[in-house]
Amino acid sequence: MKTVLLSVIAVIILAAFQQNAPARSGRPEYTSDGHLKMPENYRQWVYLTSGFDMSYSPSMQMGHHMFDNVFVDPVSYKAFLEAGTWPDKTMLVLESRAAKDKGSINKAGNYQDTEVMGIEVHVKDSARFPGKWAFFGSDDGKTGNLFPPEAQCYKCHAEHAAVDTTFVQFYPTLLPIATGKGTLSAGYLKESAGEGKK
Amino acid sequence: MKTVLLSVIAVIILAAFQQNAPARSGRPEYTSDGHLKMPENYRQWVYLTSGFDMSYSPSMQMGHHMFDNVFVDPVSYKAFLEAGTWPDKTMLVLESRAAKDKGSINKAGNYQDTEVMGIEVHVKDSARFPGKWAFFGSDDGKTGNLFPPEAQCYKCHAEHAAVDTTFVQFYPTLLPIATGKGTLSAGYLKESAGEGKK
Repeated sequence: MKTVLLSVIAVIILAAFQQNAPARSGRPEYTSDGHLKMPENYRQWVYLTSGFDMSYSPSMQMGHHMFDNVFVDPVSYKAFLEAGTWPDKTMLVLESRAAKDKGSINKAGNYQDTEVMGIEVHVKDSARFPGKWAFFGSDDGKTGNLFPPEAQCYKCHAEHAAVDTTFVQFYPTLLPIATGKGTLSAGYLKESAGEGKK
Repeated sequence: MKTVLLSVIAVIILAAFQQNAPARSGRPEYTSDGHLKMPENYRQWVYLTSGFDMSYSPSMQMGHHMFDNVFVDPVSYKAFLEAGTWPDKTMLVLESRAAKDKGSINKAGNYQDTEVMGIEVHVKDSARFPGKWAFFGSDDGKTGNLFPPEAQCYKCHAEHAAVDTTFVQFYPTLLPIATGKGTLSAGYLKESAGEGKK
């Protein structure tokens, strides 16, 4: 009886541990209550780009400078090189870091701080999400909370993103591939044509 | 006789091709006349950081905004996580890209342009270089030209870099590791202490 009890406790502890364990596979993994297990090793994935103080709203003022770094899981990256678009189970990570200016021998411009200020994951999982893709944010870097379908990010990505609701127009090594493969979205092509006429 | 002649021509063409072929191994490779074969697939290496308009000289004005992205070969990255410093054969790549501002839906800040404006490689190869490390620049992205030992970069890295002549103080995921492993250079520690007193 004692052995059975100990085994049950062990299973409960193990299950609890796995619930909170970050994912290491590079494939989307979820907790039983629908949270995304945040990818632990995304810094070893493929880097796509960084932005500096980027904003889609002209009035947004942050009061400090920021970097955004974007990573994609290596399997999906290789698939994109072949197809010019993303396969199912793609995961893109947006990591935000504060920008520092003066430090060590740096005299001008900005470099990235050691502290991560935010992580968001954009996941393609067609069987799970009605719109194929979903956004997750995380407070602790372990558990990803689903952004609800009415969140502004979904509409903005659907309308303006260059490839399959992702902002490939800002990923310098992927934009030429999508252009060559003819996978740019109608919305993006229309906006680009408008820019060319200005 | 004709077969022999054709074989000789084929060997010469192949040798010429290999001379100009970029390296794919992630380890330093050189041409017979001492140039570095530039790493072709560094964008699939491990990303370390990006800088924006960084300058070590307060008077430098570029007239345009720039991003610098830094990558390291995956084998050396894993070794750094263990040891807090770089193994022999480490290769760090500095990629420069122009920054764009208005484009697509971006209204503020900057994103990276598709055109690469420059690539430099910092190579640790103790048997080959008297100072263990060497810098290479490239005009065509294929052949790396050695920076001569009197170039300013060697002196600056030797005096100010946080770990083993590399600017780990600007690599946000590696600085805490080097700090923990106690591998920060005396020069950097002295300068940091000075900053703390200001």
